[in-house]
Amino acid sequence: MNPLKEIMNPRSIAFLGASNNLLKMGTMQLLNLVNAGFQGPIYPIHPEQKTVLGLKAYPSVESLPEVPELLAIVLPTKIVPDFIEAAGKKGTRRAVIISGGFSEVGEEGKGLQAKLKETAERYGIRFVGPNCIGLLNTENNLNTTPFAYEIGAGPIGLASHSGTYCCHTYSYLANLGTGFAESVSLGNEASIDVVDAVEYFLDRPKIKVIALYLEGIRRVPEFIQTARRVAREKPIIALYVGGTEAGARAASTHTAAISGPASLFRGILRQAGVIQARNTEELFDGALALSTQPPGRGKRMAIMTNSGGPGAAMANACSLTGLQVPEFSPETQARLRKHLPQTGTCRNPVDVTFSVNMDAFYVHLPTILLENPEYDGLLFYGVFGPEYLLEQKKKIGNLMEMPTDDMLWHLGLDNARQFAGLLRGFGKPVIGASFNGLKDMAIKALVENGVPIYPTPERAVRAMEMLVEYAQIKQRA
Amino acid sequence: MNPLKEIMNPRSIAFLGASNNLLKMGTMQLLNLVNAGFQGPIYPIHPEQKTVLGLKAYPSVESLPEVPELLAIVLPTKIVPDFIEAAGKKGTRRAVIISGGFSEVGEEGKGLQAKLKETAERYGIRFVGPNCIGLLNTENNLNTTPFAYEIGAGPIGLASHSGTYCCHTYSYLANLGTGFAESVSLGNEASIDVVDAVEYFLDRPKIKVIALYLEGIRRVPEFIQTARRVAREKPIIALYVGGTEAGARAASTHTAAISGPASLFRGILRQAGVIQARNTEELFDGALALSTQPPGRGKRMAIMTNSGGPGAAMANACSLTGLQVPEFSPETQARLRKHLPQTGTCRNPVDVTFSVNMDAFYVHLPTILLENPEYDGLLFYGVFGPEYLLEQKKKIGNLMEMPTDDMLWHLGLDNARQFAGLLRGFGKPVIGASFNGLKDMAIKALVENGVPIYPTPERAVRAMEMLVEYAQIKQRA
Repeated sequence: MNPLKEIMNPRSIAFLGASNNLLKMGTMQLLNLVNAGFQGPIYPIHPEQKTVLGLKAYPSVESLPEVPELLAIVLPTKIVPDFIEAAGKKGTRRAVIISGGFSEVGEEGKGLQAKLKETAERYGIRFVGPNCIGLLNTENNLNTTPFAYEIGAGPIGLASHSGTYCCHTYSYLANLGTGFAESVSLGNEASIDVVDAVEYFLDRPKIKVIALYLEGIRRVPEFIQTARRVAREKPIIALYVGGTEAGARAASTHTAAISGPASLFRGILRQAGVIQARNTEELFDGALALSTQPPGRGKRMAIMTNSGGPGAAMANACSLTGLQVPEFSPETQARLRKHLPQTGTCRNPVDVTFSVNMDAFYVHLPTILLENPEYDGLLFYGVFGPEYLLEQKKKIGNLMEMPTDDMLWHLGLDNARQFAGLLRGFGKPVIGASFNGLKDMAIKALVENGVPIYPTPERAVRAMEMLVEYAQIKQRA
Repeated sequence: MNPLKEIMNPRSIAFLGASNNLLKMGTMQLLNLVNAGFQGPIYPIHPEQKTVLGLKAYPSVESLPEVPELLAIVLPTKIVPDFIEAAGKKGTRRAVIISGGFSEVGEEGKGLQAKLKETAERYGIRFVGPNCIGLLNTENNLNTTPFAYEIGAGPIGLASHSGTYCCHTYSYLANLGTGFAESVSLGNEASIDVVDAVEYFLDRPKIKVIALYLEGIRRVPEFIQTARRVAREKPIIALYVGGTEAGARAASTHTAAISGPASLFRGILRQAGVIQARNTEELFDGALALSTQPPGRGKRMAIMTNSGGPGAAMANACSLTGLQVPEFSPETQARLRKHLPQTGTCRNPVDVTFSVNMDAFYVHLPTILLENPEYDGLLFYGVFGPEYLLEQKKKIGNLMEMPTDDMLWHLGLDNARQFAGLLRGFGKPVIGASFNGLKDMAIKALVENGVPIYPTPERAVRAMEMLVEYAQIKQRA
């Protein structure tokens, strides 16, 4: 059985390295674990304190009333192996070792990590880390990171050599309209590595996309073999930062990563069926699209907009990335034209310009475009929430009759929700862009109803490209 | 004199095309203009209504009590030339023509635009448009777009073939921590074009950076000549979307733009001393950095972080973009080491890891790095506002003594403000990254105090690269 299954779903946790001093990392982490609402017993271990953060504390692993399923350790480097020894004797077989100061800091640390590994292996203990930020599982409120996860469970399973990507990114993901199902901070991977994580994520039903932050890969053949198999069923997207001299140096002092040139890793990831993100933004942009949209069946995009600039930026970005924006046939143009004002254009992009005919944009045009077998996906720009008319209404005062605020809200949000439902009904990928972001209530409604919306036209296009890439990966597999 | 000087700073405006029907574009625009707080007289012209949006309306241009300095027109295409004729007879010499339906929609439109142009020229009328969204000048509250500008005046002067980029982008810019000083929606450029705008922006003291959204350039030699001259004093950054077949088609139906291949425009922009943004995000990211930071004097970057992942991502992105991350000398490493905990590393990036020593990150390390003549700029990650400790405090309840909320706020924000002051003191570019964005009060304080912070490590690096590019442009000039 994959050891992460027990590590991510423990019935009880012993916590070593928390005290009643909030300026210690371990204390912040235990505080967060307790407040996250983990349901099983948590046993702080402390040599002197009777209670830690209000929980009954135990002086040693030996003195615990039961064998804890998971050991979480934030102790000083040198004493970590001794506590693994004690836990091994007690009967614990799984751990997360948050403490740093091992292989990543030089020769002495390498020796300590070897000792740690040898001790763990003697007892059959498998562990995440060392030198990591720990675990997040939104299903059982397991959160050993120092940051509270309060943005709502999402579809992403993240395995990362960076702890920060596992726990500083919550508000960033919420701004995109996505979030984590689970995350594993891999650290130095002395026992459990990214291969284990990818395999574990396959069997987790709430995880719809696997995202990886990589500073290197320790078991390349196993990674390729496992990822290829997993990628048939779940998309995998990875950011690799160790491919340059400066990136490799940073990675080696961070997680003692074994990196290699960017070109080599491009090949490895391609062979493994993993989509390569070129930067952090693409990692999470891709995760959002891949977890909400069907794989792109082909490259031929239709573009719908109510504004020429973003439409032109989308069309241009499609051509630059290798997507296609074929001109609509005369028949299609004639059908589209019926729903456009005189100023509108319909060669692809179709641009409604300024129009008060909401049904054109929200119903007729997308139906014509998504029904058309000559197009594989839809990109759009132009949804605005009721906020605009509500603002206008305030300025109008008594100058003219206006619908009530309630009616305006209702209208704006109903339109967006129905639009999302329609878009999902064709089995083709649909992605939008909005400069307003999720502050706009209609954009929020679209995202909540499964239509990803990106802050710029080009990011929407790049996300679409990744869907097409995933379809190609599935076909190859 | 540059005609935009009068167009952007008129003493009085006649407005044609607004009524008391809010479902008309012109009505929304006049409503916004009135509410923006423009100080001079605004004269709505309407054939029947006695008042429009509460303002006294006039039946014709002839009947106005004075010669309006600026004519704003949102009338149906066909009657626009007649009203230009009437305004010419009245004595008006400047206009903004928002109405579309001209060259961008085909042969009939081309004829109408020729007639419009001929009429205007007969009276010496210079105008912005047609087929645009109009003007924004935050200095005199001139805003003919339909969107209220409420985010605070910023340093950007934008000239754009897309009206959307001029007026849908306000909240996007606010999220970055920047904004417009002025924007001109160029439309079809029948009379005034991007060359005029670039030249006008040079003399506007509040504009610190010129941003361009381009679908084509109508006067290439003049553009190169003017931009080269302006770029010596103010950075110019441009997004060009007409360089692919699909982009060119979209541009031609949008503003009847005369586009050309991407490679040709790369050459034109390079010759013109204009930094080319590869997408919308880079356009505004670059504008933020170029308007707040000194030009980068060289490519050698120091990286400071409290977290290995973002540091590695920054280092890797530097190498990929052509910036350098030279390893710190043994002397510098020894100086840095004094301020680091045992887990910290200092080869470049310098990574403080988890440390409660705030002075290291906020004072000692950046001073050592910015004083060092071997480095030309600083990239950093790791600022968090007081929100985190305030959250922790809530969870702690009565478990231990904590500083008051006021003290925590004070501490968090004072640190950030002092840090910003220190960073600005060395005359070198400094750019940070934070996944939290401006929701984090310390990040907001940094941005408000002139230190740009981007949502991902790689965007910070790309912004830094553009500063280096601008330094090279200034050297060439």
